Amino acid sequence: MTRATENSLSNDLRAVLDGRWADTRDLVREHIQTRGLVPKAGVPLAEYRAEMLEHMRAMVPLGFPAQGFSSADGDPGDPGAAITAIETLGYGDLSLMVKAGVQWGLFGGAVENLGTESHHEQYRQGLIDLDVIGCFAMTESGHGSDVQRLETTATYLPETGEFEINSPTPSSRKDYIGGAGEHARYAALFAQLITAGPGEEPVSHGVHCFVVPIRDADGDDLPGVTTSDCGYKGGLPGVDNGRILFDHVRIPRTALLNRYADVAEDGTYSSSIESDNRRFFTMLGTLVRGRVTVGASGGAAGRLALAIAVKYALRRRQFESPGDDGELLLLDYRAHQRRLLPLVARAYAFAVAQNEVTEQLHEIQSVPPGDADPDHVRRLETMAAAIKVGHTDLASYAAIEARTACGGAGYMSENRLPLIRDDLDVFTTFEGDNLVLTQLVAKHLLTSYASEVDELDTVGWVRFAAAMARDVALEKSAVRQVVQTVLDSSGEDPEDSDLTNPETQLRLFTAREDHLVRTVAARLRRANDDDADEFEVFTQTQDHLLQVGRAHIDLLALQALVDAIEKLPESPARDTLETVRDLFVYSTLEDNLGWYLMHRHVSVERGKAIRRGVNELCARLRPVAGDLVDAFGVPEVALDVPMLTSDAATV
Amino acid sequence: MTRATENSLSNDLRAVLDGRWADTRDLVREHIQTRGLVPKAGVPLAEYRAEMLEHMRAMVPLGFPAQGFSSADGDPGDPGAAITAIETLGYGDLSLMVKAGVQWGLFGGAVENLGTESHHEQYRQGLIDLDVIGCFAMTESGHGSDVQRLETTATYLPETGEFEINSPTPSSRKDYIGGAGEHARYAALFAQLITAGPGEEPVSHGVHCFVVPIRDADGDDLPGVTTSDCGYKGGLPGVDNGRILFDHVRIPRTALLNRYADVAEDGTYSSSIESDNRRFFTMLGTLVRGRVTVGASGGAAGRLALAIAVKYALRRRQFESPGDDGELLLLDYRAHQRRLLPLVARAYAFAVAQNEVTEQLHEIQSVPPGDADPDHVRRLETMAAAIKVGHTDLASYAAIEARTACGGAGYMSENRLPLIRDDLDVFTTFEGDNLVLTQLVAKHLLTSYASEVDELDTVGWVRFAAAMARDVALEKSAVRQVVQTVLDSSGEDPEDSDLTNPETQLRLFTAREDHLVRTVAARLRRANDDDADEFEVFTQTQDHLLQVGRAHIDLLALQALVDAIEKLPESPARDTLETVRDLFVYSTLEDNLGWYLMHRHVSVERGKAIRRGVNELCARLRPVAGDLVDAFGVPEVALDVPMLTSDAATV
Repeated sequence: MTRATENSLSNDLRAVLDGRWADTRDLVREHIQTRGLVPKAGVPLAEYRAEMLEHMRAMVPLGFPAQGFSSADGDPGDPGAAITAIETLGYGDLSLMVKAGVQWGLFGGAVENLGTESHHEQYRQGLIDLDVIGCFAMTESGHGSDVQRLETTATYLPETGEFEINSPTPSSRKDYIGGAGEHARYAALFAQLITAGPGEEPVSHGVHCFVVPIRDADGDDLPGVTTSDCGYKGGLPGVDNGRILFDHVRIPRTALLNRYADVAEDGTYSSSIESDNRRFFTMLGTLVRGRVTVGASGGAAGRLALAIAVKYALRRRQFESPGDDGELLLLDYRAHQRRLLPLVARAYAFAVAQNEVTEQLHEIQSVPPGDADPDHVRRLETMAAAIKVGHTDLASYAAIEARTACGGAGYMSENRLPLIRDDLDVFTTFEGDNLVLTQLVAKHLLTSYASEVDELDTVGWVRFAAAMARDVALEKSAVRQVVQTVLDSSGEDPEDSDLTNPETQLRLFTAREDHLVRTVAARLRRANDDDADEFEVFTQTQDHLLQVGRAHIDLLALQALVDAIEKLPESPARDTLETVRDLFVYSTLEDNLGWYLMHRHVSVERGKAIRRGVNELCARLRPVAGDLVDAFGVPEVALDVPMLTSDAATV
Repeated sequence: MTRATENSLSNDLRAVLDGRWADTRDLVREHIQTRGLVPKAGVPLAEYRAEMLEHMRAMVPLGFPAQGFSSADGDPGDPGAAITAIETLGYGDLSLMVKAGVQWGLFGGAVENLGTESHHEQYRQGLIDLDVIGCFAMTESGHGSDVQRLETTATYLPETGEFEINSPTPSSRKDYIGGAGEHARYAALFAQLITAGPGEEPVSHGVHCFVVPIRDADGDDLPGVTTSDCGYKGGLPGVDNGRILFDHVRIPRTALLNRYADVAEDGTYSSSIESDNRRFFTMLGTLVRGRVTVGASGGAAGRLALAIAVKYALRRRQFESPGDDGELLLLDYRAHQRRLLPLVARAYAFAVAQNEVTEQLHEIQSVPPGDADPDHVRRLETMAAAIKVGHTDLASYAAIEARTACGGAGYMSENRLPLIRDDLDVFTTFEGDNLVLTQLVAKHLLTSYASEVDELDTVGWVRFAAAMARDVALEKSAVRQVVQTVLDSSGEDPEDSDLTNPETQLRLFTAREDHLVRTVAARLRRANDDDADEFEVFTQTQDHLLQVGRAHIDLLALQALVDAIEKLPESPARDTLETVRDLFVYSTLEDNLGWYLMHRHVSVERGKAIRRGVNELCARLRPVAGDLVDAFGVPEVALDVPMLTSDAATV
């Protein structure tokens, strides 16, 4: 679309970022451009929401909503394309991305992955075409991160062959549910399944998912259902978040999405997975696509914010320029380079890592569910969580910094940075709170991705980790084989080696992760002591555990960037990406310099060189800063803001 | 108001935070409470703005608007009370704070401090009573931080005895001006004053301030004036920011606020200050109250956000609690303590430092302008800039972190954290961009507060600093005498001494500042080399310079907190404040650990102890966390949000 007018450096860089589903990206870019899909301020909620629904309807013929689903004849669709399409909406309006993600990703994903043939027949075409609009009713007012403890009940009544859905307490109210405020007619509802076989006492089998109608064709609440509207939020005005209370609502037995468990007419419960917790986390695992999509589209919006800020810094002049009458561009100042360019470098690393997550998910979801390698699935879950955290933390921070770096102009809604910031803010919370997910990543790492881990409570996990900790510390393998080979082939002493050497870079990142894992493992082993209080051990270790997660997130991003560069032929794009990688590495080291110095992985002299290096790398990227953000391929309409077009902003 | 129901610890702490103008704070708290002054979402702009104006009218009878002005008989008023009142509005609605600050602080301050008797007579009572509503028209679309280069012209026409105000270019448009969107009838307008004495060529004497009518009594633009509305912004919906263009608008000669310069009927220019630049910065200096007020009220809003987040963390339960059936409170988790309590500690330090700035400003502005000690004035300017940066950076970050720490509930506008975050965002930009101000603080420090510094351009400053640098490095005295005495009396080696000893703490902070100043000075001296490019020297030094500024800001806050504690008798409040001070110190050291290790002010072992210390201090403050935020004295209405009151949020 805008490619013809750009130079070959930015085209080559864009090819790297666009990755395998470049055509899908272009399709959505074009859609954003022609429909003028940009966030707006001051539109009344009802109007904004209705507009988003219209935009969704316009996307159906583009085909990617259907690509997210397998067809009746077993064609697995194209999950990678479906995710990439939603990701690219991050260059448009995140309200639309979230509404589309709820419908096709979360609600659709629940029906697709947790349901069986009858559910697919009943709902699949309708939810693709938007005849069936649904929401994803998991979170409750009292429980967000701790979903095993949801309070909503679905009690099977054998006398009528129905489940009765109920909200027993104020805190069991479904809350913040996208679509529940207005448009959703159905809910993929998560509730404790309670049933009894003949002659048994009713018992809960843990959380299961049901398709529950909540509104009639006129949009009125069905009997027993009480929805309410969350109203204004910190952003995402086009998303109708709402609350749902159920008062003994009856649904048929077949409303249970029964791929992993079923209830017979007589109330007998059956499942191929014995443990309630493991079953629940297996179900959750199939919904990983939502987490991947949120990381991807959040990342795209972060790139948009950076593109706006860098382009402004390339036209806005401030203070006198020595030697001539003009003033300097903002991006000529070192302080301005330092606030934006390391974020651009990080955005490259995470964009590439995100593409890899999407590819892996695509591979796994392109084969029948049972055929995927469980170990691969497990590692994907960890990587999806890790990249979701890294990408959304980066994006949220980048949007805030972009606003600030554009001063007063950046605060005007017409220039969109505040809207992007507002919409992005919650990306660090939904689809898994980033702090909780960082902890999850660390837990997976510490217990060699054992599938038991998610099911354990804190105390249980500490016991398990303490038992495993010795082995983990010795044979942990967070590093991929390809990278390991690179490392093994090098005999260099990191301290003497060149910090721009990717081997050295990987060594430093890996050393941090290894060291942290080993020392956390040592702390956890104390839980083996007879008088140990496991919760106390956990509390004492929590901030250390979070460091493990953060180190792993950075390492994953670096590995992905190193891999991506290795695949490129010698070219200006490759040279530029190497400088981008160096800046990502140097600025990450600088951010963690205290740790590296304290643990003697970096000497004082090298520490000073790192600080200087960030400055030098910023200066080296300054001349190509425009190319770097052009390569994001942001549609022109998203950059058509007064501060990038008006004469008034420049002197 | 709510004091009776609180315990003596929080009362004692509140007395420290409330400081000298505690009665004023209570007056405004009561006003916030009775009028339900809280930020709201989704109110149409016009309605929100009109409501703010009504609230302003209701504040006039409280008396503090008048206290900001001297009276006709020379009574200097009570500047400290006026500032403290506006500060306390930060617990209410920042839209109101900004509108009030623009009217009484900025517009009123310009008339008061730059005008002379005739202006006072003409406008003072009216602007207090809101019969005269004004705006402060300094920033232009093309120039924000670099106000010396404003383009608007005020050309004196001796033939009619008038000034002609003109906007010669698109970038000379006055922009983001609070009040210019709708309510202001007058502007305190900053423009290049151009005039010629008899027989001379017209010449610009630099930027001066004029009172210019911009709207008629019906609110329509006056002839030659074109205002427009900035519309929606990142926050502050109740403030009518706007733009103003002037097309050869005539105003009388007497519209020049002529305390520091005047133009005679024949066009002859006169001023007691010869240098254009020095005169301009002298004028700007008298307007320091705006900067102080923004830091103070931003800080108050940051405390409000922290109070909400801490109170939520003291009622919200999550995940199982070992040993009983309940779940743990959020604040029982170390990670949650670590994200909130160091911010609370920092908020204490800056609140106390802010009080000191207000007191010093009060002393200076309670005597006739000529009587104030210029050195005292100069140091106040530096401290006002420093504390504005530190306080608003903290507040903005705290609001973001508070939102995140409250998860999905934190994202709901009904719980107000997103509104506080949105409103606060621009506090780091207006009244001096924080990055530019940090640089200013460093420049003052490096050149011993020489008044020449502000007037110099970058190259000029580098030359000046290079010439002075040797002396500065030797005799810089950023440390106050009282603190110096404390330090001198101690012969301890910092590395062996107790990190909870305030002497050691001051030593560490001072050592950082000293070291940074010395090394920056050394770099700047290179500009003395014959082949030196001064701008290159500046660029190479900019990030180092910013570190100097940041180190000084932290030191000022620590000094203020140490001073405040020294004045207290032995008491639980004093003990608690010492722990608060320790957490502020430890967490600041942790944030800068790389620097301290690299420059060998902290050993590796001590570095590890600092990290552990943050954890331990958080744990020690955990039981009094509620008292710590109760002591902020936030009005009940500001805490009356669903997530702090509803049963649904707790299980």
